[in-house]
Amino acid sequence: MNHKKLRIAVDMDEVLADPLSKFIALYNRDYNVPLDLQISPGNEIHHHVPEHAKDKWYEYINEPGFFRDLPVIDKSQEVMKALNNHYDIYIVSAALEFRNSLIDKYDWLAEHFPFIPWTNIVFCGDKIVDTDILIDDRIKNFSNFKGRKLLFTSPHNLLITHYERVNNWTEVADKLL
Amino acid sequence: MNHKKLRIAVDMDEVLADPLSKFIALYNRDYNVPLDLQISPGNEIHHHVPEHAKDKWYEYINEPGFFRDLPVIDKSQEVMKALNNHYDIYIVSAALEFRNSLIDKYDWLAEHFPFIPWTNIVFCGDKIVDTDILIDDRIKNFSNFKGRKLLFTSPHNLLITHYERVNNWTEVADKLL
Repeated sequence: MNHKKLRIAVDMDEVLADPLSKFIALYNRDYNVPLDLQISPGNEIHHHVPEHAKDKWYEYINEPGFFRDLPVIDKSQEVMKALNNHYDIYIVSAALEFRNSLIDKYDWLAEHFPFIPWTNIVFCGDKIVDTDILIDDRIKNFSNFKGRKLLFTSPHNLLITHYERVNNWTEVADKLL
Repeated sequence: MNHKKLRIAVDMDEVLADPLSKFIALYNRDYNVPLDLQISPGNEIHHHVPEHAKDKWYEYINEPGFFRDLPVIDKSQEVMKALNNHYDIYIVSAALEFRNSLIDKYDWLAEHFPFIPWTNIVFCGDKIVDTDILIDDRIKNFSNFKGRKLLFTSPHNLLITHYERVNNWTEVADKLL
């Protein structure tokens, strides 16, 4: 019998890695944005920084090293490890948008998700992956995706109601394990 | 009317870029392998180098810069440009196998295929792409692919008979334009 495992694609930023706290730390350093900044539902971080600093995120994110030391999202490692026993897990990140993110993301994954082999990492633009499930915080990545879509909660998507939602990795485990 | 374009995934190495001539140049420099080396049908380059140099390819390919100055495969640019008017073209390379290839491949594509935007580049391991056509020289990439498979001729695959074959980019144009 050939029990083929289901494939899950898992986004990186705001799902496995936390760029928001890094942005806030950098805006704090340069513009006194408070370190405990709460991003209002539906907003992006640039809605909460001084007008003249709005475009700064693009400079920050293109800096070599930006993605190398991002915090790991709570419980993502243990749940990913458990999922990895039951599914074919692919990490799928739109890394091609930022040239300098490629090596940082590669090294970050090697450090924090060493149980995911290189064969199961996808750095792309459009997420044209053939998987059964996609866990992502950006609904634009769902538009051409045919499988089950799990919207991973992030401030910017809190007002969106028409997708199956997971608020954290414990809820991912509850749904998929 | 919604005329959705067909999607074509196009491999890089030995399809758009030529690592073989670079390997031969390096083996020539270090082991006097002739620059006009012909690789016999079904063979890989390591079948044609001195026994004690067989594993050297791994050292060469991991060197930063290896993929940056590869020659462009004949007529690939003009045919890709023409295809790009009729299809959604994605470049899909198993770049995750070699950490140091990522930036080199990114820069190489920006130089030689500037008309392919970052959204249409996929660096991966397994080629789990959801496209209609895949042009590739390695049949292992066809095993889980559901669409039309075009085997792009390279010495190592010359003995394979059970796939639709394209010997060069002129033949790709004949079939797809």
